[in-house]
This record gives sequence, structure tokens and C-alpha cells, in this order.
Amino acid sequence: MRVHIIGTGLLGASLGLALSAKGHQVTLEDTSPTAQQLAADLGAGQVVTPKATNAEAADPNAATDAASPAAHPDIVVVATPPDVAARVIASALEDYPNATVTDVASVKTRLLEAVRELATGTQLDRYIGCHPMAGREKSGAIAAQSDLFTARPWVICSDEDTPADRLGEVIAMAEDTGASVLHLDPRIHDAAVAKVSHVPQVVASLVASQLRHAPLEEISLAGQGLRDVTRIAASDPGLWTQILTGNAEEVRSVLVDLRTELDEVISALELGPGSTGLLAKAIALGNEGHDRIPGKHGQPPTTYAVVTILVPDTPGTLARLFKDIGDLGVNVEDFRMDHASGRKLGMVDVSVVPAIQQELEIGLLSKGWQIPESAIEKEGTA
Amino acid sequence: MRVHIIGTGLLGASLGLALSAKGHQVTLEDTSPTAQQLAADLGAGQVVTPKATNAEAADPNAATDAASPAAHPDIVVVATPPDVAARVIASALEDYPNATVTDVASVKTRLLEAVRELATGTQLDRYIGCHPMAGREKSGAIAAQSDLFTARPWVICSDEDTPADRLGEVIAMAEDTGASVLHLDPRIHDAAVAKVSHVPQVVASLVASQLRHAPLEEISLAGQGLRDVTRIAASDPGLWTQILTGNAEEVRSVLVDLRTELDEVISALELGPGSTGLLAKAIALGNEGHDRIPGKHGQPPTTYAVVTILVPDTPGTLARLFKDIGDLGVNVEDFRMDHASGRKLGMVDVSVVPAIQQELEIGLLSKGWQIPESAIEKEGTA
Repeated sequence: MRVHIIGTGLLGASLGLALSAKGHQVTLEDTSPTAQQLAADLGAGQVVTPKATNAEAADPNAATDAASPAAHPDIVVVATPPDVAARVIASALEDYPNATVTDVASVKTRLLEAVRELATGTQLDRYIGCHPMAGREKSGAIAAQSDLFTARPWVICSDEDTPADRLGEVIAMAEDTGASVLHLDPRIHDAAVAKVSHVPQVVASLVASQLRHAPLEEISLAGQGLRDVTRIAASDPGLWTQILTGNAEEVRSVLVDLRTELDEVISALELGPGSTGLLAKAIALGNEGHDRIPGKHGQPPTTYAVVTILVPDTPGTLARLFKDIGDLGVNVEDFRMDHASGRKLGMVDVSVVPAIQQELEIGLLSKGWQIPESAIEKEGTA
Repeated sequence: MRVHIIGTGLLGASLGLALSAKGHQVTLEDTSPTAQQLAADLGAGQVVTPKATNAEAADPNAATDAASPAAHPDIVVVATPPDVAARVIASALEDYPNATVTDVASVKTRLLEAVRELATGTQLDRYIGCHPMAGREKSGAIAAQSDLFTARPWVICSDEDTPADRLGEVIAMAEDTGASVLHLDPRIHDAAVAKVSHVPQVVASLVASQLRHAPLEEISLAGQGLRDVTRIAASDPGLWTQILTGNAEEVRSVLVDLRTELDEVISALELGPGSTGLLAKAIALGNEGHDRIPGKHGQPPTTYAVVTILVPDTPGTLARLFKDIGDLGVNVEDFRMDHASGRKLGMVDVSVVPAIQQELEIGLLSKGWQIPESAIEKEGTA
């Protein structure tokens, strides 16, 4: 397929890398000549200048003649920042009258409305909104990777008017990146990402914000819980402002519900001992929601046994550990290294199916590893 | 040392295991005969019946005579649930007139006030409040482990009236568990744990709570961000109710600040495009707080390079990976397995010092591992 990608940031450049690796003919375009060239140099595709408006100022080496892949792309992917996506999608529908046009923006309803205002009815049949749920805390082509979409959900928001052949093209492209295709209504998509992505982002940022003026001796008590809750607080303010603005209604709705429960907790803390029931309820409701989060590989939560191993922080130790685990024929479902505070020593939690926990513990102890004497313990995969 | 532990839950039993392993004479006491016996069976120490009040109903095998270690302990550790800790500490000061009495409760100011009301001035010199910052999402002696305290902060709240010899005893005991001793004023401790532990717990529970009624197709979009933010939402409501009640004032104060910022975000979402500055500010303030969280081993945040490796989900793969990394002489600072959705494939993020990133990537590629073509990327250790 001939795929033309407009916008060569993290997502556009990663998509170019993934599709080029699969043998597709990828052309690239970006308002920033530097970003465009960087993506091309990284192997994401061939640079072209924009088809119509910038033709006069065209780079003589760019592929703009009628025979070039950019002149007649099968698919145009708009991977610009969200706040200009609607305009760029409408231009692409105009400029490439035979192409299927899609995008990668993380909010779908408002974008679809904006595109509907800018494009004609027949043009709209060629637009299929998408949201590949991939990203990182870094941005730009410099952070691109060809496997960014591998095993990630790729949401497609088609409707009953979408021609089957165009839908098929988009599905084929998405699957060639290694992503798992999901079909969702735009409103359901936006409600979902508000709960599973946008609100967690806001709240992680708010928790981290409370640490701004804390004395260092207070922050020195930070543990894994705080680290986990605030990891995504390192995200880019510019991008997140656009995402939150684009999904303002859904995000606001969930945040208002959350604020109601927060108010109840604050009131309970003011009331003192008599209101412990309210506090217990808040934590219990969290248990309930937590239990609904699916486990690894999108399957329902699985109960694994966790074996904790003490490891000295020296080169080769993890290699020895995982070699010993492999020699025991044990498949590791999940693992996590717990940071030690104040000394060069770490703890590794290895999750395995409960049936082989004892075998693993006995095996590792016999190989000289330090394992707590705990009896069998279980927890979810979260 | 002779150490008498009152309360054989997760912390008490783990402490017994750790101190017994170091050759100390540990005796155990719990209001639940089952919990007490379980801890003893696990190797946490020797069962005794309570010294005074229950003496008549004593187990004939229990060590209650004057020659037994429980009769004259050097240290009594109160490891009961927080809501009865003050009363039990006061009784211990009465029952063991020569012993140093300490505790493991996670809130210190209110407890100290309560103990001051119940005990005499001379008794108070023998009480030294502590908070070993260790725990798990599981509870009870069954989840105990001798290395629970290893490399964790052990906060000691002594003051200028604390006799040096008694303080020395408590420090020696804490260090024998492998913990890192920190000295903090009770108020500073409580303000710190409100920010780094109690508020993150409340907020994680509130975020998870919003998922209670979400359709499964929405929850299927959950990614690592949500999983991280909500991991501790699996915690025990009963214990957390006591902790939050005990530190109500400090937790409330931080939650009120957080609510003010939440209100600003909600208002900004209502105002629309004109207020994007407020949204950007909220995320940027989160960046600022996030950057203050110390890195591994309690050192200041370090910038590591992250190498992402694609791994098939089969036994032995992690072993091969870490063996190959070890063979390259590379020390892994941190690692994380990212869950794949919809297929049997995982991604492992390995953090290393930036200077050896390129060497690691080249080395792994030459050994046949799949690594994204990313240029050099950096992130904090969170």
C-alpha cells in the first residue's frame, strides 16, 4: 500500500517505521522541515512537500511528480497534534480525492464533529477515525520506534456508512503495525479513555503537585506506592492540554464524580472517629473498581503467586536469577524490581501460576537465592 | 536481646522472623490465640500468655515464669492495629517496668498524645515511637517475611528526653532487621506520610472507584498508566480506615490542597479553549512534583537511558535476555515488563546509565534481540 503520513512526531514517525518495515511505500510530510527530515533519516519513509499549496517552494529532490507514491496514496494518515487534526483531515480529503483518510488522535467525538463541519458528505465516507493506544512519556520522531503499536489496542471508529473496502484497508494497515484492532463508537471510546487514561493522568499530576514544596526529608520516605501513582505525572503538558480540551466533557464528568467521593473523604476526616464507615467505604469502592481491571494480554484478572527474591545490585545478578528460573522450566508471568532505600540491595517480585510456586521457591533456595519464608500468598496481576 | 512482640500480624510476625534469624530471644503475644500460634509455628518466636491479667488462664506450656525471656524483655514492641496501640503501649510500660517500649504504628503524633495521657512522666522516658515503612497489600502472619524491613526506612521519633542507651537499643534492633534508620520529629513524619503514602492511597482508590460501573469494552482499553495509578487501590479498607483516622488532620490538609487544584482543572474544562493555560499549568506542576521524587536507593533522581526489548512470552526468554545483558557486563538499574494486549508478547524496559546504552543496544541486537530503532532517550527512574 501507498501510505502518506502527515505529521512526523512520535506517532507518525513510529507508524512510518512500522509500515516501511512491512514493505509499504511510505511518504512523509510535516510543517517542520527538520522534523520531516529527521523522520526520513530514521527510516520512516520518503520526504515529500505538501501536494498543493507549497508546490512552488518544493525541494527539487522531493517526490512530488504524478508518478510518485505521494501523488496517489491509498491511505493518508493524519498524525498532527490534536488541535489542528480536523483542518488537516479536511484538507487531505480535498487534496487526495481517491484516498482513505484516517488519523491517530486520542479523542474522537469532537474531532468527528469538526471534520463534519469542514468536509462534504461524499468526502466524509472516505474518513475513518482511529486511535492507536500507544505512546510514551517522550515525544517527537527522536523517540519513535517501529514496534510502538505492537500488541496495543488500535481503536477504529467506523460507522454503518463506512465503505467495507476502505474499512478493510485501515484494518490491514493497523494490523501490519502489530496492533490489535478494536471497533468502538466514538462516544464510547471517549468515555472509556476519560476513565482509563485522561482522569488517571490528571490525578497523577495532582498528587505529584502536592510534593512541590515538601521538604526533602519528607520526600525521602517515598516508596513504590507513590512512584507508581505518579509515574505518568512526567507527561508533556502541551500534548495533555490538547487531549483534555478535546475530551473536556467526558473528563469533566468523571472528575466531578471523583470530586464528590473526595468531598466525602474530606468530610469524614473532619468528622473524626464517628465517620470511619465513610473512609472504609471509599477504600472498599476502590477495591471493587481495581478488581475490574483486566490482567495481562487483555484477559480477565488472573491470580498469580508472587515469589520475592532478594538480589544484590551487581552486574550479572539478574541474569543468574532469570537463568536459574529458566532452568527450572518456570514461565514468569510478571516481574517487578522493588527499589531499596539506603543500600545497594533490591527485591524482585516474580509472579507465576500458583501451581508452581512451591517448586520455584524450593528450586531457587537450593541454588542459594534468598527468599522470604512466607507461606503461599496471592494477588492480582495489577 | 530479649524482645517481646505484642501483636502478631504482618509486621509483628515479620519482625519476629527477622530478629529470631539474628539470634535474638523473641517472645510473642496476641489477643488471638490462633494468630499467636501461627506466628510461632512460622518461626517468629516463642508464645507467651499476657503477663498479668490472663495469667490464670495460662497455657501450661507457655513461658511465663520469672526465668523466661518474656518476664524481663529488654524491648517490648507493640505491633497491634493502630486503634488500640496507645492503650497497649501504656499497659506495656506498666507491665514491664524495666523495658524500652516501642511500636510500629504508621501515624505518630496522635499516638504520642494518647500515650502521654495514659502513662506517667517517668514511664514516658521508656517509650520511643517508631514507624518501619514496610508493608504489603496482604495482611496477617501468613504473609510475614523475615526480610520485610530490609532496605526500608525505619523512622524513629525520639526526642531530647530520650535516654541514649534506650535509643541505642531501638536503633540496634531496627538495624538488625536490615532497615535503614531515620530520625524524624513525629509531626514531620505525619506530614510526610500524608503526602507520600496516605494521599496517594486515597486518590488511587478514588480513581479505581470510577471504574466500578464502566462497561467491560471501556475497561478493555486500560493500559499500564491506569494499572500503575491504581495498583495500591487493592489495599485493605480496615487497616486504611485506622491509618487515615489516625492522621486525619494532615491527610485532610493535603487533600484540601489537592481539591483546590482539582476544582481549577474542572473549571478549566468547563470554560473551554480559553482556559488551556490552566490545564497546562496543572500538568506542569505535576512534572515539577514528580521530578522531586528520589530515585533508586534513596539517592537524588538519576537520568537513566531506557532500552526497550521485545520478548516472546515463553519460558526461558527472560533468562536468556538477562544472561545476554550480564554477558555484556551491563548493570541493570531498573526494569519493567510492559503488558501486551491481545497477544503473547511482552516488552521489557531496561534502565541503564546513559553511557552504556549504545553498547547495550548493539550487543543485544547482535544476539538477535528485537529493539526499537529509537535514538537515545532519557527519563527519570520513576
